[in-house]
Amino acid sequence: MAGNSFGTQFRITTWGESHGPAIGVVIDGCPAGLDVSEDVIQKELDRRRVGQSDITSQRHEPDKCAILSGVFEGKTTGAPMHIEIQNKDANSSAYDSIKDKFRPAHADYTYTQKYGHRDHRGGGRSSARETACRVAAGAVAKVFLKSQGIDVFAHTVQIHDVKAETFDRSVIETNDVRCADMKAAARMVEKIKETRKEGDSVGGIIEVLATGVPAGLGEPVYDRFDADLAKALMSINAVKGVETGSGFSSAGMKGSENNDQMLIVGGKPAFESNNSGGIDGGITNGNTITARIVVKPTASISKEQRTIDKEGFETTIKVEGRHDPCICPRAVPVAEAMMRLTLVDHILRNRSARA
Amino acid sequence: MAGNSFGTQFRITTWGESHGPAIGVVIDGCPAGLDVSEDVIQKELDRRRVGQSDITSQRHEPDKCAILSGVFEGKTTGAPMHIEIQNKDANSSAYDSIKDKFRPAHADYTYTQKYGHRDHRGGGRSSARETACRVAAGAVAKVFLKSQGIDVFAHTVQIHDVKAETFDRSVIETNDVRCADMKAAARMVEKIKETRKEGDSVGGIIEVLATGVPAGLGEPVYDRFDADLAKALMSINAVKGVETGSGFSSAGMKGSENNDQMLIVGGKPAFESNNSGGIDGGITNGNTITARIVVKPTASISKEQRTIDKEGFETTIKVEGRHDPCICPRAVPVAEAMMRLTLVDHILRNRSARA
Amino acid sequence: MAGNSFGTQFRITTWGESHGPAIGVVIDGCPAGLDVSEDVIQKELDRRRVGQSDITSQRHEPDKCAILSGVFEGKTTGAPMHIEIQNKDANSSAYDSIKDKFRPAHADYTYTQKYGHRDHRGGGRSSARETACRVAAGAVAKVFLKSQGIDVFAHTVQIHDVKAETFDRSVIETNDVRCADMKAAARMVEKIKETRKEGDSVGGIIEVLATGVPAGLGEPVYDRFDADLAKALMSINAVKGVETGSGFSSAGMKGSENNDQMLIVGGKPAFESNNSGGIDGGITNGNTITARIVVKPTASISKEQRTIDKEGFETTIKVEGRHDPCICPRAVPVAEAMMRLTLVDHILRNRSARA
Amino acid sequence: MAGNSFGTQFRITTWGESHGPAIGVVIDGCPAGLDVSEDVIQKELDRRRVGQSDITSQRHEPDKCAILSGVFEGKTTGAPMHIEIQNKDANSSAYDSIKDKFRPAHADYTYTQKYGHRDHRGGGRSSARETACRVAAGAVAKVFLKSQGIDVFAHTVQIHDVKAETFDRSVIETNDVRCADMKAAARMVEKIKETRKEGDSVGGIIEVLATGVPAGLGEPVYDRFDADLAKALMSINAVKGVETGSGFSSAGMKGSENNDQMLIVGGKPAFESNNSGGIDGGITNGNTITARIVVKPTASISKEQRTIDKEGFETTIKVEGRHDPCICPRAVPVAEAMMRLTLVDHILRNRSARA
Repeated sequence: MAGNSFGTQFRITTWGESHGPAIGVVIDGCPAGLDVSEDVIQKELDRRRVGQSDITSQRHEPDKCAILSGVFEGKTTGAPMHIEIQNKDANSSAYDSIKDKFRPAHADYTYTQKYGHRDHRGGGRSSARETACRVAAGAVAKVFLKSQGIDVFAHTVQIHDVKAETFDRSVIETNDVRCADMKAAARMVEKIKETRKEGDSVGGIIEVLATGVPAGLGEPVYDRFDADLAKALMSINAVKGVETGSGFSSAGMKGSENNDQMLIVGGKPAFESNNSGGIDGGITNGNTITARIVVKPTASISKEQRTIDKEGFETTIKVEGRHDPCICPRAVPVAEAMMRLTLVDHILRNRSARA
Repeated sequence: MAGNSFGTQFRITTWGESHGPAIGVVIDGCPAGLDVSEDVIQKELDRRRVGQSDITSQRHEPDKCAILSGVFEGKTTGAPMHIEIQNKDANSSAYDSIKDKFRPAHADYTYTQKYGHRDHRGGGRSSARETACRVAAGAVAKVFLKSQGIDVFAHTVQIHDVKAETFDRSVIETNDVRCADMKAAARMVEKIKETRKEGDSVGGIIEVLATGVPAGLGEPVYDRFDADLAKALMSINAVKGVETGSGFSSAGMKGSENNDQMLIVGGKPAFESNNSGGIDGGITNGNTITARIVVKPTASISKEQRTIDKEGFETTIKVEGRHDPCICPRAVPVAEAMMRLTLVDHILRNRSARA
Repeated sequence: MAGNSFGTQFRITTWGESHGPAIGVVIDGCPAGLDVSEDVIQKELDRRRVGQSDITSQRHEPDKCAILSGVFEGKTTGAPMHIEIQNKDANSSAYDSIKDKFRPAHADYTYTQKYGHRDHRGGGRSSARETACRVAAGAVAKVFLKSQGIDVFAHTVQIHDVKAETFDRSVIETNDVRCADMKAAARMVEKIKETRKEGDSVGGIIEVLATGVPAGLGEPVYDRFDADLAKALMSINAVKGVETGSGFSSAGMKGSENNDQMLIVGGKPAFESNNSGGIDGGITNGNTITARIVVKPTASISKEQRTIDKEGFETTIKVEGRHDPCICPRAVPVAEAMMRLTLVDHILRNRSARA
Repeated sequence: MAGNSFGTQFRITTWGESHGPAIGVVIDGCPAGLDVSEDVIQKELDRRRVGQSDITSQRHEPDKCAILSGVFEGKTTGAPMHIEIQNKDANSSAYDSIKDKFRPAHADYTYTQKYGHRDHRGGGRSSARETACRVAAGAVAKVFLKSQGIDVFAHTVQIHDVKAETFDRSVIETNDVRCADMKAAARMVEKIKETRKEGDSVGGIIEVLATGVPAGLGEPVYDRFDADLAKALMSINAVKGVETGSGFSSAGMKGSENNDQMLIVGGKPAFESNNSGGIDGGITNGNTITARIVVKPTASISKEQRTIDKEGFETTIKVEGRHDPCICPRAVPVAEAMMRLTLVDHILRNRSARA
């Protein structure tokens, strides 16, 4: 059973290689009656696209989307939506020199082991180009969530040794690293530029939040909300870890510190803290959902590395090309998309919870 | 769509509440021809069961399993296996005093919000008692994995502020916290006992490893091996974070440090390091799979906490009863089970990768 | 991927062999808040059980069900329900003489080819005993459907060359073949008894109907209501064909005859006829759903037949034992159950059709 | 949960409306290493396409396919394949006059009831145009099946009151109705032409066969091979019934007639007859798989019919346009495609049957 679909009720299936003619996503299970247009999707795609600042890849892809089905007279019909994006600036020749070598920390070796051969051009299916499809589908999810009063956003909280220390949501989209702390943002950008000069790359951490989420989402005991969210976020290229709420820091805490005590505020149940990240027993509790993901340093670096070739001989490699020296800035909209897809899916699933 | 199943080819479905008459698991998709017996399953169940040391809950459950289908003349037949475990020591009266209050950081409030009512006895379905079923199914998975040369084990690497500093696999099962560092283990046990005296609880971190895993497991791009593993592990009660390989520490690394360079050792592809945790591009690379999970401090503590009741009034609660002051020791076999279930599922899925 | 589950939102998974210790069914996705008890289930099981008349098998199984999870204080909780039925009268010795031979038209040969070995006792997993689990789950579905104003029933319309010619629903449960035409019923019983004397068996046709079904059920284009219903009914042991509405007779009709013209009756849309069987374009139209299934003659007959043995030699076989000479009477409640399970699943699925 | 996917291991997802810009299919789970090209797919599409004879619709669609992903250097890569077909001759204006009326026996009314609104142009998603995607995917399946020695074909056996009486496979593709009996074919064509003149339509029956199928396919007890095949075939537009082997005629048979007795031929297990249609207990037995489907008369007829409009008033309708007066000829390749998709899926599923 192959794995190019995500979700159960709101289910996306993506296709396309980095250097093929196009990429696309089919959304099956989008409820009828939503106002969806290419504009709404394009706006999100533009946030993920390459070349938006001088610290991202310089490949030039307009990422212009086309809705080919599922929308009629401006509204979703309940039929599968297909959104397609042409690949315009695929330069496969840059990959010729490395097509017989396995790039360290890439999927080159593993795809070859799995399938026997692979489309090496631009990373083929394993390229982060696929995430454009997630963002496109996430934009449709956003329309639905807005109607439910749910708001999702993400921001970069760490790049290498630089950490955000203040939080101002309004500045996130005003700096190139999408950090809510303008001072830290400036240092993050500096760090990325320095690293690129060295022919190297850096990792970082992104936080994703969802507000306005009702209590009751998540399907015990395996499709817990946090379990499905962990899968959603871990499936993003370069992500090596996921935590919700107090996460890994809860290892050093006591129950009396970590438990979110409950009270009544304005006549409604509330929590004194949010170490749970809005999720208790795998089900949302009405508090803000908080998750953090770690994004490893970009695998493609121009520094020389040891590797092997297809024939099984040792060799060295320098991965030239148009790579992001840090994945975080462009991963922010992807992380938001995966949070949104998880939310919509669970909202629809939850419609069957009661008779 | 409810969520009491895990896996696709090797699919488990569990049922049962903490204080119901029994719990059980149906394994559908277990290949025919495996040597499976109740003994093999019982051995793993005994590692998870309560009352095995003086730092775990004192509920007395023999956790005696019975295979009711799917095995004939000692071999799996390809038919669904059903493994059932009776509940013997369910003392629901202890829960009467708190049945109208929501225990902080528990699923009480969220289940009520989701379903309208809940089985409060012993936590009902949200109880960690359900994990016995995972361990039972994991024991069947272990038989299959053994035939493939795959070995899985887990150990506690941190409890509160005590961290393991040395590694000796042979001692893991000889101490009460399942730590590979005997000195740290002693301090961990001490920490747990102190905390229990305070009426409090502590969190910790567990590492899970799998050796002998072939390259090629994982289904891009959503059912990546690490994405499915993250879901598997995050679905365990009290787990708030998952990482593989260098995980969250990779945020502070450069590509040149984090990339596992490749070489040839003994005529075979090998890696100079294992920051990938055995997974590149979501597919196993043949290296040891490494993952770490954080287990939050047990939610049930006897210290007084603020909470609310069913009628929406503020109140306080002391959760008395037979709770583990630290979940880690008993979560070790559960983490192993989820790793095993993920592995078997992906081995079977991978059988369709090539024509 | 094994196939012991049916349904997506309301999903059953059955386990157990004919001569194992017990059989059972897990229902995952049953909405919370339904009034369900063992009595409600037992009533349906009693209609399917053996030995209810002198034209069914004389195996004596009380088919006493136990609900082991998912119901608390008389209501479903949203947790998985597990219903278990003990096997009391399994007499495996009767199968010893034929364990090395393949019974013609049985699953003996095919299971062996698939799995390498099989549980031959009483047909093991391939036995129609499994259908008791369907009936148990169907009884839970019935509770839900009743709350929606939906009524499902089935009746025998043909046994061998005897066809029902009149229809009186009130008499269906008053005769041993569950026929709505008392005169035909008498001749059907006669036919069955004669055939049994010859050591032979007969086939027949059952009609299943559902009234009160709302328009809009069914998920185009593959999970059409009729496609899922066809699968549901075809999965019943011995069923070799399914049709809805005018079915196979529509081959000989013209569009002008077969199309159900629409009109307004009592202010509501209505149809002049029901050749569609209540389904247009795979979606229910509000009219009564009608389906018919053909049940082949029981494969087990005591007449001598040619067959082969495990070693690949030709031989002969007489299948003695306690077999129904005609499957129809006991298949009626099973067909109803499969219709009900399909309906509940699609009602829940349809909850996501609109935003 | 929407229903635009078919299959589990070899899973297709289709999208597109009759009068949208294009239609397409994503195939997820196609094993790597198959030789697939657009030519191979085009050949099958040409058999289904409109305007191939004077008894089919005169809409002119070249149905030119493009493979946009999943194939590299002529071989499948294991990545999802996307096949797209442009709509060239969509004339929506013909539908303007009926957009506010519900065509009897069409999906107009049911889609509106389900989704609240619908794309009325050319039937939108409910149009048989979608079946081009099935045929495209089926062509890929055919490549795989050929490598396994499996051959699938279908033919028309009845149109209205004309039945095929002889069988010559070589003539099937030489007549406009795809009948294996040339004399009957001529009368069938005549019947269709007469009917069209009357402004009416006719139904018919198609038989689908698969030879070379190994024993062991099918997953008891719900995903039996015949159950999945019934679903596959019933999901085709206008199909109202499915039977395998002796099908509905087995109602009138005795076990001694219907059972396929076994013998050894050429050292291998064989059957004296094939009333089982190659399937026993839901699992293939190695014999030829035989199934028959009934195709109702085309719903669109130009004869005046009674119907209602969107406002709920009675009215009349004449459905003009470019409709096939009989669906059978073009449904033959669609039926083959669904048989092939079911076979490939079950071959891949069966790879997990044994340890």
